[in-house]
Amino acid sequence: MGILVQKFGGSSVADVDKIRHVANLVSREFDNGQQVVVVVSAMGKTTDGLVSLASQIMDNPNGREYDALLATGEQVTTSLLAMTLNTMGYDAVGLTGGQAGITTEALPNRARILDINTTAVRQHLNQGRIVVITGFQGIDHAGNITTLGRGGSDTSAVAIAGALEADACHIYTDVDGVYSTDPRVVPHAVKLDRIAYIEMMELARVGAKVLHPRAVETARQGKVKLVVRSTFKPEDMGTMVEGIGALELDRRVTGIACDKNQSRLAIEGVPDIPGVAATVFGQLADANVSVDMIIQSISRSTNTEGETKQTNDIAFTVGKTDTEDAKDILTKVKDELGAKQVLQSDNVAKVSIVGVGMIDRPGIASDMFAALAKANVNIHMIATSEIKISCLIPNEDTDKAVQALHGMFFPDAEPNSKLTSGDILVNEKVGY
Amino acid sequence: MGILVQKFGGSSVADVDKIRHVANLVSREFDNGQQVVVVVSAMGKTTDGLVSLASQIMDNPNGREYDALLATGEQVTTSLLAMTLNTMGYDAVGLTGGQAGITTEALPNRARILDINTTAVRQHLNQGRIVVITGFQGIDHAGNITTLGRGGSDTSAVAIAGALEADACHIYTDVDGVYSTDPRVVPHAVKLDRIAYIEMMELARVGAKVLHPRAVETARQGKVKLVVRSTFKPEDMGTMVEGIGALELDRRVTGIACDKNQSRLAIEGVPDIPGVAATVFGQLADANVSVDMIIQSISRSTNTEGETKQTNDIAFTVGKTDTEDAKDILTKVKDELGAKQVLQSDNVAKVSIVGVGMIDRPGIASDMFAALAKANVNIHMIATSEIKISCLIPNEDTDKAVQALHGMFFPDAEPNSKLTSGDILVNEKVGY
Repeated sequence: MGILVQKFGGSSVADVDKIRHVANLVSREFDNGQQVVVVVSAMGKTTDGLVSLASQIMDNPNGREYDALLATGEQVTTSLLAMTLNTMGYDAVGLTGGQAGITTEALPNRARILDINTTAVRQHLNQGRIVVITGFQGIDHAGNITTLGRGGSDTSAVAIAGALEADACHIYTDVDGVYSTDPRVVPHAVKLDRIAYIEMMELARVGAKVLHPRAVETARQGKVKLVVRSTFKPEDMGTMVEGIGALELDRRVTGIACDKNQSRLAIEGVPDIPGVAATVFGQLADANVSVDMIIQSISRSTNTEGETKQTNDIAFTVGKTDTEDAKDILTKVKDELGAKQVLQSDNVAKVSIVGVGMIDRPGIASDMFAALAKANVNIHMIATSEIKISCLIPNEDTDKAVQALHGMFFPDAEPNSKLTSGDILVNEKVGY
Repeated sequence: MGILVQKFGGSSVADVDKIRHVANLVSREFDNGQQVVVVVSAMGKTTDGLVSLASQIMDNPNGREYDALLATGEQVTTSLLAMTLNTMGYDAVGLTGGQAGITTEALPNRARILDINTTAVRQHLNQGRIVVITGFQGIDHAGNITTLGRGGSDTSAVAIAGALEADACHIYTDVDGVYSTDPRVVPHAVKLDRIAYIEMMELARVGAKVLHPRAVETARQGKVKLVVRSTFKPEDMGTMVEGIGALELDRRVTGIACDKNQSRLAIEGVPDIPGVAATVFGQLADANVSVDMIIQSISRSTNTEGETKQTNDIAFTVGKTDTEDAKDILTKVKDELGAKQVLQSDNVAKVSIVGVGMIDRPGIASDMFAALAKANVNIHMIATSEIKISCLIPNEDTDKAVQALHGMFFPDAEPNSKLTSGDILVNEKVGY
């Protein structure tokens, strides 16, 4: 008998009626002969209430006690779902992260899972029980309650599925799968039946919010078959995330994503001597600023106060929340290195095409640039990886660029009559 | 350095402002050089919300999952209080019942504490920390979360104080101590500075809600010096609950209580043969009905259908919630024994005087009966113990009876200008 892990997010368990619906989805799998482990997030409003209480006590709540506070949110959902299943005649048991054997780092608010001891969970399963586990949390070696930070509940579910060697981990959410691009921008976006871990991770990193990259990476490492599907359209099979080997490679591009939450910074006229890049990016790393695209211009001769020097320009992008920190550091570095000036541009966005199909298949980059040129979109910067090409473009051209790229790489996609952008716009979380 | 345990109930931690006030009371004791352990209840509204959620799922919520649900309430308060103390610059740590080493029976919803392993709490205290612990809960030997049922948080605090051999356990509540009687009935009721465990227990059993009898009994067994005091008048020293040996015995009566939540049942004309009382009360006990006052009349001769028999009447009181169950059992017993009839009266109340001062001091019972007679209150039944005399009277005479008894046993009490009944009526919990 195989084990199935089902994970339900906050919007899927937002009230008691929705929890009843979830209990039906769980019991259906159990009745089909699966051993079922369910991982739940906090009810949306519960978390809001807890955060509001904590915010009345301190700005930017954090630390050990904040973890213990937030952890109650998932415990509430877990208890209510187990109670609901029990009233339906199923033997269900709710477990906290600690009770489920999840040990994490001793790092409040963003701990990583170190180990899962599945003894208790397996005992309950073997006694014919449905096991409901709090997502997002565990305990450290000293028994303190910890939370996993962003993407935590997805990561819990995937890690539990890996530790149990489950047949699959179904991530139920408020979208019905992963799309070729944002259906709000391209109404005839294509729902993908299958996607590779590595593609999903790249799409998640560049803006698709359906799965946190951390959960995808955990799935890849644990070889967990991951399915993204809709709580509210459970008859839809969703999107399966799996290894490259299992996928046909006949499509060149899997998805198109955009990220408007970027700023571009540049430092002009830095001396062309060894160690300059290390100085710039070392200081940014020390300040915990994540840098994304980086471009260093070809060295050129400049004449400053009668003296001829070889100099470079270095440009890079950072998330908008880090812009001010990064600019301060860059200004300091400019003075240290005797560089010319620091430039900042917030009016930028990054569009990316992602696909394992582009490995060893030339011509995709040039097709991308051609599509953008034809749409009259100027390209500021370009960055490439094995399975991703990203272009930094003017912010106001984002939609135009995504539409042009979708037309280039999904020429056969018909406007999707079943899916309207209105369906999607009700939720912030869009699985493109 | 001595240890002080402070316990704050739901109304004392009802919102973040009140939690700040509590944090001040805690820090003041810490600054005075005490090691401080704080036990908290759930914020009033939190528990209401959780109960409401559970009630949407099942009638009369109960069981293991309900315990895990309710336990989040105290965890929220614990986290918020520890966070507040931390922001004030104190090193505070919040612990769940399990983290604090509290092991209970494996009995959901009304577990009893079996053992408290104080190792973790002592380590935190010795590192200079204030320790905040969730009241009302523990874990069983298998690690399941359990709750203690009614009076649970008081019991937690007292049991922790006993295990830590604390100097004292201060129960902070919304009244400023224990009164000689209900100040809503007798506005010049006297606040007691000291009361014996055994008196407090009898008063609690007959209707004073300030402390649960279970918490008082736990304190007596653990020789914990218990103080009932007001969260909102912390300068007031409240009422100290302690052993008889420590008390002066110069007052005859300590408190006057009444209980309107009683019904009287009687079975008339039962045969005067051995084993009848055992049959009646054995069957009530099997049905888990608690019987309070019991009177068996003197045997008399009755003539039924030409046959002369010696018969008895047996009357007793039960809590109103048990009345129907008890009546059903009694009707069955009546048929078995060939008794005459079953009578029920709901229009009764019990007034009691309590005091260790009445031990070996005759004349108190007759003073009580005289006071009631003078007030024209009819007495249905009388029951006595070493330190308590209770009379069952007509329900509508309750206030008159309490006032008459207070006049008899507290002749010097002046109308209390500091305390008006309006002060008290805002809260249901009255510490008379």
